[in-house]
Amino acid sequence: MARASSKMDQLSDLLREGRLDHVLLTSLESLRYFAGHTTAIETGPSPFSPRPGALAWIKGEEPILFLADSESSEDVASGITCRSFTGYTYQSPLRALEELTNLLASKFANLPQSTVGVEMRDLPALILEKLSSGCPQLEFHDATARLIEMRSIKDDDEVEAIRSALALCDLGQARVKQLVAPGLTELEVFNEMRKTIESKAGGRVPLLADLVSGSRTAAVGGNPDSSQLRIGDLVIADLVPRYNGYWGDTCNTCAVEGASAEQQRIFQGVKTALDDAIDQVKPGIRACELDSHLRQWIRKLGGAYPHHSGHGLGVTFHEEPRIVPYNQTMLRAGMVIALEPGIYIEGKWGLRLEHTILVTEAGAEVLSKFEHTL
Amino acid sequence: MARASSKMDQLSDLLREGRLDHVLLTSLESLRYFAGHTTAIETGPSPFSPRPGALAWIKGEEPILFLADSESSEDVASGITCRSFTGYTYQSPLRALEELTNLLASKFANLPQSTVGVEMRDLPALILEKLSSGCPQLEFHDATARLIEMRSIKDDDEVEAIRSALALCDLGQARVKQLVAPGLTELEVFNEMRKTIESKAGGRVPLLADLVSGSRTAAVGGNPDSSQLRIGDLVIADLVPRYNGYWGDTCNTCAVEGASAEQQRIFQGVKTALDDAIDQVKPGIRACELDSHLRQWIRKLGGAYPHHSGHGLGVTFHEEPRIVPYNQTMLRAGMVIALEPGIYIEGKWGLRLEHTILVTEAGAEVLSKFEHTL
Repeated sequence: MARASSKMDQLSDLLREGRLDHVLLTSLESLRYFAGHTTAIETGPSPFSPRPGALAWIKGEEPILFLADSESSEDVASGITCRSFTGYTYQSPLRALEELTNLLASKFANLPQSTVGVEMRDLPALILEKLSSGCPQLEFHDATARLIEMRSIKDDDEVEAIRSALALCDLGQARVKQLVAPGLTELEVFNEMRKTIESKAGGRVPLLADLVSGSRTAAVGGNPDSSQLRIGDLVIADLVPRYNGYWGDTCNTCAVEGASAEQQRIFQGVKTALDDAIDQVKPGIRACELDSHLRQWIRKLGGAYPHHSGHGLGVTFHEEPRIVPYNQTMLRAGMVIALEPGIYIEGKWGLRLEHTILVTEAGAEVLSKFEHTL
Repeated sequence: MARASSKMDQLSDLLREGRLDHVLLTSLESLRYFAGHTTAIETGPSPFSPRPGALAWIKGEEPILFLADSESSEDVASGITCRSFTGYTYQSPLRALEELTNLLASKFANLPQSTVGVEMRDLPALILEKLSSGCPQLEFHDATARLIEMRSIKDDDEVEAIRSALALCDLGQARVKQLVAPGLTELEVFNEMRKTIESKAGGRVPLLADLVSGSRTAAVGGNPDSSQLRIGDLVIADLVPRYNGYWGDTCNTCAVEGASAEQQRIFQGVKTALDDAIDQVKPGIRACELDSHLRQWIRKLGGAYPHHSGHGLGVTFHEEPRIVPYNQTMLRAGMVIALEPGIYIEGKWGLRLEHTILVTEAGAEVLSKFEHTL
């Protein structure tokens, strides 16, 4: 169980700066980030309760997590009051979202004229409609951009959570390396690798993964399919598991029974580029500078990559700071970023290498522990 | 590629009955149902584009699917115009939902005073806010209940899609039966079973599953964990895969090296109850009657189940008609329902058996083909 207090203090500052009085959060990432609660995602939104709950914080009161009773409340952070509502029952019609909406409407009903920070992208229109009509004295403002910025700096508990997810990545990368052999399909490699990860985690693990071989590697990534590995193929394994609500992200590229001299040269070049970029990571460098540094290095190798140089991660697998050409954001201690340079040769093959890195006061700590080997 | 025409005709009727002029659909199930497009769900909502798109149909015009360019448009049904918007780019800030919202706002801007059917539960507040302020001549009404009712009757293409998902269930059930042995963990059985399903499907398959053993079976279900199977355990395997956007659903219970006489008696009793309920299925019987019939039968066996007797399925894994005590809905030809009686003995063990059934003019056709064996 996490402590909510320091994040709630920061949220309080954020509300003050935004001239917001109260807050109503409904995204899965906010429920995890502020209230500690992780929602199952592997089979899509629940047909019973399209939202697992909502975090409401009225100025001067305790924050309340309204949570469907079909969700476990064991992970809810201390300092957050949890109130359950009926998420699923076979004894009456399904109306979980309506019940949540009613609870929120009565919670917000008797407030004076004031402002509420919400997540407009992740707030169901049903809730906004009902609150707007039932509480005409309230104004609702989108707080999403401020929340995204706040989440870009991780506290110690978050870094530990990301480390745990990355330990699963490390295991997965070692397993892929061990497995690749001519005749196996991408799917078979993927399934065995996932089995290793889930066995270590002791349960199901949401897992985003590029796992492609041969000429498919030239197209950056994709889901594993029944393509068979052949001698001389490269295999890109970009593994992004979620553990305890936090994501890890690493990528390796390995060869099926030996790489060509050209592939070895490019692999070493990209590895050096990644190492060098990691050396550049420190508070004060701008995201776009890091992006440009990596792209230049790759250009010297005669290649390029049609994607970001990296991105933040945490309660989502892609967040700020994005390491991209336009992003002027300065890196700060506590940011966690994945860096992932690659080179892709059209129609032939591609490779990509990725580590996840914590920005520290002193520079950088590489949180993923496996070594990239071809 | 599916044909959209007959569903769009029905939607047109539905709009007329609801006195709605236009429609704007944003749920994943509506995108699949009306426009043929299946969205990946295994890793939760995309951090790039929290909605993959929206289907807009303005009276007298062609229906348009606005679809993020990060989604494949190959599955979009004929008769639907597809217009793409930027779902992801590394060259400028992420604003996929804002771009979708702007496209919708210009599409709806110049209409006369009229009404738009929307899905209030699945419509982001951002879109509703922008449309409400930009198009004050429009009224937005929730069409969700009518859409749910419409979806309860399947056409031939849908029944075929469900059959394909159920073929994966059949394979999975056979594999679980083959696998269960003392010393294996639930997770190991789950992973091997899923490997069989994904190998047959040729790619990743979203899979909801109860896979529990021993005393965990008394609690109805749950995700597989590292519990080890022991001699004499029962194993409940409730497998719900999605294939090509449609779900299948079956449940079997099997014993690890032999069941007790009592377990055999109960298993046979529940199997007979399920067979008998299937015999009752025909147009005209009410969902609550079927529910009551099954519960009575189970009560005669000295047991009960604290859940629904069944439910519809299709583009979601739980939809109308729910086979539950309060539901007066009459079954009609074309409905597809899962029926799943069980008996649970507190703290000891439980078992559940489930088939998926098509309601036909003549009665019922069992779409799942495996045989329940203990």
